[in-house]
Formats: sequence, structure tokens, C-alpha cells
Amino acid sequence: MERMTIVGLGLIGGSLGLALKAAKLSDIEIVGYDTDTSAAVDARRLGAVDKTEPTLQRATAGAGLVILATPIVAMRGVMEEMAGGLRENCVVTDTASTKSLVMDWAGQLLPPSVSFVGGHPMAGKETAGVAHAEAALFTGKPYCIVPSPRASEGAVRMVVGLVRLVEAQPLFIDAEEHDRYVAAVSHLPLVLSSALFTLVRGSPAWPELAALASSGFRDVTRLASTDPELSHDICVTNREAVLHWLERMAEEISRYRELLVEGREEDLFKHFTRTQFDRDTYITAGPPTRTPVTADVPDLGERFAALIVGERLARRAREMSKARSERPGEGRPPKAGRRP
Amino acid sequence: MERMTIVGLGLIGGSLGLALKAAKLSDIEIVGYDTDTSAAVDARRLGAVDKTEPTLQRATAGAGLVILATPIVAMRGVMEEMAGGLRENCVVTDTASTKSLVMDWAGQLLPPSVSFVGGHPMAGKETAGVAHAEAALFTGKPYCIVPSPRASEGAVRMVVGLVRLVEAQPLFIDAEEHDRYVAAVSHLPLVLSSALFTLVRGSPAWPELAALASSGFRDVTRLASTDPELSHDICVTNREAVLHWLERMAEEISRYRELLVEGREEDLFKHFTRTQFDRDTYITAGPPTRTPVTADVPDLGERFAALIVGERLARRAREMSKARSERPGEGRPPKAGRRP
Repeated sequence: MERMTIVGLGLIGGSLGLALKAAKLSDIEIVGYDTDTSAAVDARRLGAVDKTEPTLQRATAGAGLVILATPIVAMRGVMEEMAGGLRENCVVTDTASTKSLVMDWAGQLLPPSVSFVGGHPMAGKETAGVAHAEAALFTGKPYCIVPSPRASEGAVRMVVGLVRLVEAQPLFIDAEEHDRYVAAVSHLPLVLSSALFTLVRGSPAWPELAALASSGFRDVTRLASTDPELSHDICVTNREAVLHWLERMAEEISRYRELLVEGREEDLFKHFTRTQFDRDTYITAGPPTRTPVTADVPDLGERFAALIVGERLARRAREMSKARSERPGEGRPPKAGRRP
Repeated sequence: MERMTIVGLGLIGGSLGLALKAAKLSDIEIVGYDTDTSAAVDARRLGAVDKTEPTLQRATAGAGLVILATPIVAMRGVMEEMAGGLRENCVVTDTASTKSLVMDWAGQLLPPSVSFVGGHPMAGKETAGVAHAEAALFTGKPYCIVPSPRASEGAVRMVVGLVRLVEAQPLFIDAEEHDRYVAAVSHLPLVLSSALFTLVRGSPAWPELAALASSGFRDVTRLASTDPELSHDICVTNREAVLHWLERMAEEISRYRELLVEGREEDLFKHFTRTQFDRDTYITAGPPTRTPVTADVPDLGERFAALIVGERLARRAREMSKARSERPGEGRPPKAGRRP
């Protein structure tokens, strides 16, 4: 019986557990740990883990794979605390929304015999906690994989296998690129959504404004309901990139203001027409360029399976890869580029 | 047989038609007109109107109620063109997202015998056109009513009845207040959503960014897919208020930047905690203060019914009012306040 441990049983940790349980891995025990005992009890009750342990050390000792799904800033302490008790060749991955600092911490704190492979599932919702966990949370979503310099090939394969098992799309990227890119498509929308909400909420006319607000306001401010610890940790661990994009956003708002102030109505119309066209294209056709990188994935899935779960999982991995390669436009994450 | 005419058979005009048809008004013929013949054909085919007419004059002549649901800027020309042919005591209403200019046009262009009562259903989606129309689009949504100074009491009642029939919540407000308020909760989110999309879309790294973008980016940029004519018309007809809120938004972004630059992590955490709490409260509890204004609404609905549809509708209006008053938290739109 191999042991896989999830540390941090919130929305993401709980959903990973449910997705892994749904994959019906044989000979794998999924162990959970959370500093919040009631979260641990809930995760067990909801079937996200097979068992829980009362301490981090007991939960991680002997595990072949440890998944850190705690708040970002807390990961440093978790690594420090569990480092001494990890088994030789243990693979550690995480789910943090920012990668550079987490990779640094892993490099400093985990023993050389352990392979760290950073991860970031591009999935979530504004309702935190294991009660909102879903097995299908990651289905079809990009899942960033950031191997550390000293991670073994086998460790990388294992994390790719994990990503495939939860039906996400593996996307290799380096930590700095990751942080600059997600600052644009994830952290900027988060801060903007919060800023829009706090601005309007802070108006003396808020009761009247709220009465008039409809689905547009609700959707654009949805991310203002994000778990505050996550919002805080993102801003603190990806500060420079978030600041960069906030600055650019202020400039973009100025561009719109100029169009209005100068009364350039025709330009405004052309601009909105182009914007609608581009967004509709993005929504219906998906990301613009995709470089096939899945040529060897069935093989990777197979080898991961052989590593810890045997033939049954290997069969499932092959089926999944096949199903995915038959769905056009999926399973082919892009090669990450250079400029943010 | 009384005649009700909808001018402009897009998403809003078409949805009003479907909602009115769903109310099964007897002795009322719903006539439609659109400069785009194929939209008119579709509206007829989808059952949003009973018949269409080939010209604006033919569609509006003899109508007891005319609903203008064209793009905002086009309303001026429509009023000018139909003014001469409207029957005595005709009631004209509109659905424009901005009210001040539309009220001015109505005052200047419609004959004194006609009552204009401005309207604005706070409902919509980013997919334009009658093909996306839904009878339930207005259900439970605020519907602003802005009577012109010379509108008769009966005309106001008729528009309140219309709002009730489409199951929306009537909310009396003056034109300038309306425009300042919706600039905050509707037009600012629209411009912001577009600006976020154009900023990120314009990055040289767009292919990589798009591959990483998930539901958060999609939701916050949803309004960038708004019909460009609507976005343009809103900015042009509510320029000052939109500029005011864009300026304030730029200041709000600066506040967030300062928190980051100064490394005030605890303040940042408190701030996000407060924001999440406030938004969750708003989402679960609805707008903060509501002043009951519906005491005489069953009566209004009844009188409207008597005006043009007879007893059967009056019964339905009573039932609807009753159902509404039994649902807590609904049917009590707030009294609009003063400051934006």
C-alpha cells in the first residue's frame, strides 16, 4: 500500500482528494492533514481522504507523494516542519497560486533526497473550504508544472500523472514566467474585482447603488469574494508582478478616459467592436496558438502508473490520453513564451 | 383590440415581447418593428410579437403604448419620425441604459398629447439579438421608471403595470440620479471589463496568457463581449458620469498599489477580509436598506389592467402582487437617495 498525503484540506486539497478518489486508485492510501481539525473531519466525511492524521509528521512520514495545498505563506512553515521526516525519494508538489517564492523555499528547506515539483491548478471558485470541494474542479483546466532543478525525471512524471488523473491539462512553465503571466490573467482580475467592489461599496449612495446593481456588477465583482488569505498571500508573494499589471491597468483606464474626454466617438465604437470580436473569438475558439506537446504523454502516464499504482491505472491513463487526443483543441497546452 | 408596439426587436425588445406574450393578455395585439427586417421576421417566428409592420409609422399609428427598445442614440431619430403619427394620449416608454438625454429628446420631440415615461430594465446579457431573448429576463430585476414632467398619472400606472407584467421590480428614480448611479454599478464595470480584456489581449504574451486564463478572467471580462453599439451609446450618452467613476476607479487602484508598495501586509489582509465580508453580505442579504413603496401597487396593477386589458389581467396582477408580497425581501425597491 503506497501513501499519498494531502496537507491542507480546503477547496483545492479537498477537490484533489475527491478527484483522486474518483480515479479509484488501487493500493494507494490517501492521507489528509489540516491544522483545522474540523476541516480534517469534514474531508474524511466527504470522502476526500481515506484517513487523517493528527500531526503533520505522522501524515507525511512514509508518503511517496506529498501534496501541499495550504495557504501560500503557510507553505514555508510546513516544509520546515515536515522536512526531517520525509522518506528518501519522496516527491513533494504544491498547489500555490504563485511559484517563485515556493520554489525558493523548497530549495532551501527540503532535503536533497526529496524531489520538489511545483504545481498550480488554474481552477478555483470564490467559495473556500472543503465543503465546496468538487472532484471535477480541475477537469479540462490548465495545471502548471514547475519542476525544481534537482527534481528527478520520475518525480516529474509522477506529478504529470497526478495532473492527468484529476483530468487537468499539464502545462510546463518556469516559476518566473508563471508568476508574471498569472499576475495578468488571475491576480489583476482579483485585485480589480475587489477594487471595483470596495469603490462602489464605499459610496454614501451604496444602498441606492446596490438596489440598481444587476448581474454585470455581480459577475465583475465575483472575485472580491475570494478567500482573503488567498488574496493577501497572492499580493504578498507576487508583489512586483501584481504592481506591474496594476500600473498598466491604470494606463489602460487612462486610454479609455482619453477617448471619452476627446469625444472620439467613432474610435470608441471601433474599439468596442474590436474588443467584442476578440473576446468572442477567445471564448469560442480558446487560446490562440497551441504547440502540441503531448506526443509522449501516454508513455509518461504509463510510467507514473507503473511507479506507484500498477497496470490498472496505466490502462486508465492510456484511455484518458486517447480520449483527450480525440477531443480537438484539448490536451495540447502551449509552449510558454518569453515576454509577459 | 388594443395595440402595443415594440420598436427595436433585439435582446430587450424581444424579451419584453416574450414576457408580455407569456402573460397572455387578452384583447391586446403586440406589434413589432425593426429596421432590420430579419430581426423582425425572427421576432415574429419566436412569438415575441403578434405581427410586424414594414414601417415605423404603420407600427406605431393607433398604438396605446409604444415601447422603444432600439439602441440609445437611435431613439432620437425614432421619436422624431413617429411623433406626428402617434394617437392622442399615447403612452411612450423606452428601455435605454441612460436616461437624461432620452428624457430631453422626448420633451423636445414628442407632441404634448403624448405621455413619455422613461424606463430601464436592469437586466441583460452579453449576447445581443432577438435569438437570445427570454421571457424571464426581467424576473425579479430592478426596473427603473422615470416619468417625464408632463406624463399623466394613467401613463405612469400603465408603465408600472408593464413592469409588473414582466415580473420586474419597479423603482422610481429621476433621470440624473439614475445616470449617476448606473454609471457606478453598470457602466463602470462594463468599461473596466473591456479595459482588462484589451490590456491582456494586447500583450505580446497573449497566447501564453490565454492558455493560463481560467474562470476568473472569463467572468471579470464577460462584459467586454457586450454589444459594441450599446457600449458606445452608454459612454456617449453618459459621458460625464462614466468619466467621474473611471477617475475614482483609478484612485482606488492607487490605494491598492500603495498598500502593496508600502508592504502593509496586515492592512492588506484586513482590507481583503472586510471586502469579502461585505460582498458576501451583499450577495446573500441583497441591497442594504429598503423602504417599502409597494403599499398601493396591487391597486396600480389593477387600474392599469382596467385601462387596457380588463378583468382577467387585473386578477393576474393581484395574484402576482400577492405572490410577491409573500416572498420576503422582494417587491420592496428602495427609495432612491441623493448622493452618487
